[in-house]
Amino acid sequence: MTLPFSSSVLDSVGTALAAESARFAARGWMPGTAGNLSVTLGRDPLRLAVTASGLDKGELTASDIVIVDDAGEGVVGEGGSEQRPSAEAGLHARIAAVTGAGAAIHVHALAAVRAGHQWPGGVVLHDLEMLKGLGHRAHGERVVIPVVPNGQDMRVLGDAFERQYVRPTASVAEVPALIVADHGIYAWGADLRQARWHLELTEALLQIALSRA
Amino acid sequence: MTLPFSSSVLDSVGTALAAESARFAARGWMPGTAGNLSVTLGRDPLRLAVTASGLDKGELTASDIVIVDDAGEGVVGEGGSEQRPSAEAGLHARIAAVTGAGAAIHVHALAAVRAGHQWPGGVVLHDLEMLKGLGHRAHGERVVIPVVPNGQDMRVLGDAFERQYVRPTASVAEVPALIVADHGIYAWGADLRQARWHLELTEALLQIALSRA
Amino acid sequence: MTLPFSSSVLDSVGTALAAESARFAARGWMPGTAGNLSVTLGRDPLRLAVTASGLDKGELTASDIVIVDDAGEGVVGEGGSEQRPSAEAGLHARIAAVTGAGAAIHVHALAAVRAGHQWPGGVVLHDLEMLKGLGHRAHGERVVIPVVPNGQDMRVLGDAFERQYVRPTASVAEVPALIVADHGIYAWGADLRQARWHLELTEALLQIALSRA
Amino acid sequence: MTLPFSSSVLDSVGTALAAESARFAARGWMPGTAGNLSVTLGRDPLRLAVTASGLDKGELTASDIVIVDDAGEGVVGEGGSEQRPSAEAGLHARIAAVTGAGAAIHVHALAAVRAGHQWPGGVVLHDLEMLKGLGHRAHGERVVIPVVPNGQDMRVLGDAFERQYVRPTASVAEVPALIVADHGIYAWGADLRQARWHLELTEALLQIALSRA
Repeated sequence: MTLPFSSSVLDSVGTALAAESARFAARGWMPGTAGNLSVTLGRDPLRLAVTASGLDKGELTASDIVIVDDAGEGVVGEGGSEQRPSAEAGLHARIAAVTGAGAAIHVHALAAVRAGHQWPGGVVLHDLEMLKGLGHRAHGERVVIPVVPNGQDMRVLGDAFERQYVRPTASVAEVPALIVADHGIYAWGADLRQARWHLELTEALLQIALSRA
Repeated sequence: MTLPFSSSVLDSVGTALAAESARFAARGWMPGTAGNLSVTLGRDPLRLAVTASGLDKGELTASDIVIVDDAGEGVVGEGGSEQRPSAEAGLHARIAAVTGAGAAIHVHALAAVRAGHQWPGGVVLHDLEMLKGLGHRAHGERVVIPVVPNGQDMRVLGDAFERQYVRPTASVAEVPALIVADHGIYAWGADLRQARWHLELTEALLQIALSRA
Repeated sequence: MTLPFSSSVLDSVGTALAAESARFAARGWMPGTAGNLSVTLGRDPLRLAVTASGLDKGELTASDIVIVDDAGEGVVGEGGSEQRPSAEAGLHARIAAVTGAGAAIHVHALAAVRAGHQWPGGVVLHDLEMLKGLGHRAHGERVVIPVVPNGQDMRVLGDAFERQYVRPTASVAEVPALIVADHGIYAWGADLRQARWHLELTEALLQIALSRA
Repeated sequence: MTLPFSSSVLDSVGTALAAESARFAARGWMPGTAGNLSVTLGRDPLRLAVTASGLDKGELTASDIVIVDDAGEGVVGEGGSEQRPSAEAGLHARIAAVTGAGAAIHVHALAAVRAGHQWPGGVVLHDLEMLKGLGHRAHGERVVIPVVPNGQDMRVLGDAFERQYVRPTASVAEVPALIVADHGIYAWGADLRQARWHLELTEALLQIALSRA
């Protein structure tokens, strides 16, 4: 049987996901087995490699990835582990489908949880240099990090995300992050490194916003 | 003489306890020689391996464990070190006996101390995703982390714990953590890794609760 | 062609900049690709080695440096990478020109951003031992960390810096740091190590000032 | 010439001081070149090995120690480096002389600076388990961490320390820590490890006290 994704590709993706995951676990952003990361493997049909559920995110190995489809359901016979994907794989897949992201990271960072509670209608950021790192203007632009209510049905969460997601235009950049209230944050980008940057920047911006509230 | 626990088992348990201990020392949750960890070795009679008292918890070796009985008293002739067990071994043993835990961790994490002071009657948590990591529902369930007054007699502390401990049922999960006011926190689980997860999640949940108080 | 700077010198400078950069990335002071560091290579004409733009500051290598002139523009043919220098290289060059600094560090540390917001007219520090580490008296001297408004034109920023910069005299030492409001902080010194010390001390002093506000 | 202290002893002491110093530098408690550590080498006459002044406390080597006398002045011809001892060596020597400490650590930890500002008359601690780690009772005892005003004359600082120092008795233990207002904290013990424990515990206790203020 010819798999769509070679074992060497999956091994590289798994290695990168495990390393990135350990980075955020060390920061305390993945308490318990919280959080998950994904890389988009292909788009026709949509396939993501997602970190397996129920494992310590500081101890993943390259083989602790599951291949999921556009609903976040595990796909059999295309490689990867047969472990259970995170339930949240469904939201990863929706983000990949809607935004075209190449990678997404979901963590339980404290400032995101605090900001989602403080501003349930969305976190307004403006006139901060680090907005440039998210693709926006440092000054004179109002950037809103959307906040959606928490829930266990990823279709509901995905619909709420889509309603709030503002597609980038020639003049307005994307906001590559989403806060799930009482839960955590998703950030995404063209690849895993850019998703990391967007996550770090958003968390730093939220810390600044909270310090001024 | 045939010991109940082989030296290879005790060496493995001691290695795991030392590594786990160093993890929390590095986080600053074990200032001085504070804190202790245990693994339940057997139940008939109850035997625990507990970290030895008076040592830096970032510098333990595999041999720095003491075998204790159901009262937390050191047992002679069954292996392990002849060092002094922590006085708190008695509460570890009680937790193992009452809850069936396979491992327990006690640290002096700041959010636990702050929360125990803020809510001496127990810390009420609800509508937070990370409650799922403790076995509870993310929404619509009221979870109480019990708080007991501090004391030096582990029987008194153990009795206070038992009075507050709610045995899990088919419909309501256990709360695998206990705050000792003005002191610190205990968390436990089926094994050392699960106890770690319960501890990390509880501390993160308490940080969130304190940020909203 | 004989380059003004030997490859062994540039390799040493690049190695030092990468190591120093990773230090501050690990502290969380360089979220995303934020921040940049420079070493003054020569003064006639002014040449600086500046970290390249758009890279993760925890992952730089010795070759990720760009040689810039007194306007912060990349210089071709004198060695170093042909990558894009940070736009902020212009402010590094101005600082080197005005203060005579041998090295400068720019990071997005939280206390600096908070203090710049709290005291837009400058942060007044006095009667704190750590002022000695900046070359000032521990007591009886009023030290002001200048705050300039953020902007994207480094000439404007540089002019604002120059207007606030107080040249050291025989009796009053320099203030080797500058806060850019809503953005971050620059600190400098005779070499990279002294710039690091000035940065660490200023951030610690700002944390103290904020805790008393 | 026969030195009072063999080079192997001094090398061991220097190695321990460098390692301990790096520990606290990594915690951010020694910004710039702040802080210093000492080990008491002998008492008749009093001799201490103190970390050299003006160096990054995360980068010391075993040879970066200076031997000082009871006034904190460098002693020539008894081994150790000929570098400049910290000016604060005089207070290390006084603490060693008055308390009999075998080692002392001085850092610029934030909670100590904040607490010294909040309670210039001394920080009162009581009913906290971690007081046991300082040799006191967890409950029913009032423990005061003395606060002295900052100053540059170590004799004045030492006199202020002596006036506040309460000699331990059979029924009341020592308080092995001293806050210097607007500056930092000293902690000491029988050896370097115990001094570390006393420092960690005091800083943790001060964090708790500040969270309740």
